[in-house]
Amino acid sequence: MNNMWFFTILLFFSTIVAMALPSNVGYPVPQLDCLSWRLAVETNNLQNWKLVPKECENYVGQYMLGKLQYRRDCEYVAKQAIEYAKGLKLNRDGKDVWVFDVDDTTLSNLPYYARSDVRFGTIALNNTKFIERLAEGKLPVIPSIQGVYKTLLSLGIKPVLITGAPENFRQSRIANLKKAGYSNWLKLVLRGGNDSKSAVEYKSSKRMELVKAGYRIVGNIGDQWTDLIGENVGARTFKVPNPMYYVG
Amino acid sequence: MNNMWFFTILLFFSTIVAMALPSNVGYPVPQLDCLSWRLAVETNNLQNWKLVPKECENYVGQYMLGKLQYRRDCEYVAKQAIEYAKGLKLNRDGKDVWVFDVDDTTLSNLPYYARSDVRFGTIALNNTKFIERLAEGKLPVIPSIQGVYKTLLSLGIKPVLITGAPENFRQSRIANLKKAGYSNWLKLVLRGGNDSKSAVEYKSSKRMELVKAGYRIVGNIGDQWTDLIGENVGARTFKVPNPMYYVG
Repeated sequence: MNNMWFFTILLFFSTIVAMALPSNVGYPVPQLDCLSWRLAVETNNLQNWKLVPKECENYVGQYMLGKLQYRRDCEYVAKQAIEYAKGLKLNRDGKDVWVFDVDDTTLSNLPYYARSDVRFGTIALNNTKFIERLAEGKLPVIPSIQGVYKTLLSLGIKPVLITGAPENFRQSRIANLKKAGYSNWLKLVLRGGNDSKSAVEYKSSKRMELVKAGYRIVGNIGDQWTDLIGENVGARTFKVPNPMYYVG
Repeated sequence: MNNMWFFTILLFFSTIVAMALPSNVGYPVPQLDCLSWRLAVETNNLQNWKLVPKECENYVGQYMLGKLQYRRDCEYVAKQAIEYAKGLKLNRDGKDVWVFDVDDTTLSNLPYYARSDVRFGTIALNNTKFIERLAEGKLPVIPSIQGVYKTLLSLGIKPVLITGAPENFRQSRIANLKKAGYSNWLKLVLRGGNDSKSAVEYKSSKRMELVKAGYRIVGNIGDQWTDLIGENVGARTFKVPNPMYYVG
């Protein structure tokens, strides 16, 4: 085989190889994998994960803070929830309720997760830090979800807040919610000290109490799938994005 | 106020304005909104939508074809499903089944949705075209989902295919599935001619028949949330991405 043929064939095969490669100029492969990882988290295809993969720290940081995509995604969820609520035929008997999760639904843990000792969920948040954060009661509002909350109040739908935080932090939770601009909830439910249920069981049991008391759960919003599955989930559920941690 | 002060203050405020702007260099705002739209579709926050928004045609096209993100997302779902299946404790009595949807789960409609008369779902696929596509039976395989299918067969879990396509297309569906490399399914379920149920009701009723016949639905995979909600959804569900159309 002469050189001319050799180079022609080489050019032919290298063109095929180049065409078969992902057209992801400017996107390193790990970032693409982190997109798939986040989608799997948000759709509940990936369950029981412990930490954000190390190689996705930068991606999650960019998602949450850098590109404002997280804020836009929250705003879009809020828009859907508000449209749905405004379209409801309500009984106006005071029995229509909407269930809200607290952490990373009404209040944001992002300032904690952005810290260098947590790194957007790539490092575990230990129990001491978790308790400090609860006791401080300084979590900021998630504005778009507060928009949902206020719209529901104006429509006569009563908010019920159900948090996985322990009962002994009730006062700091109330202070935090009020500081963040929340008020007039029907109930704020915290976890009992001896409660060893899973998140799904705990939240289902509290929703069951609402239903038994004659309330109709017309909607339910949370950042964890465990807020939105189980029993009596409500007439419609809304998933707020959260690629930073998983509550099982 | 002298000029020096004026320019200092101008610089100060323009810096604040610049910092407040989204750091989305290279991303036009519509693309960011399309990301939020797609996330809302994939999480079932957005329901009963009719068409892909016109301004998202390019985004959906890029997602499905341009950047291979769709393929990667499918591969990641498949990976989760395979890991889950391999971890199951099976009875090996021939009663463990896995429900598959067909369109855009086992077979891909992407070649049709990429056409200039459909434009990735921004133009409605009319009924004539839908029937032509079914009759042709030329849909290609989605390789990663076929990987799940083959793994399940090797584990002794029997695939049950439930499609919304009408019963009179049974032969073309079988031919299409076989051409695409699928075989050895336990059942292929199509819709009866007089069936006017919603997608959720139809799929629930067919899963109910499986359960009544003594089968255990250990898994369920589909590209529509209506495949994955309702009754007897299975021990675990997997959502395959599909930003091109919604089946209600």
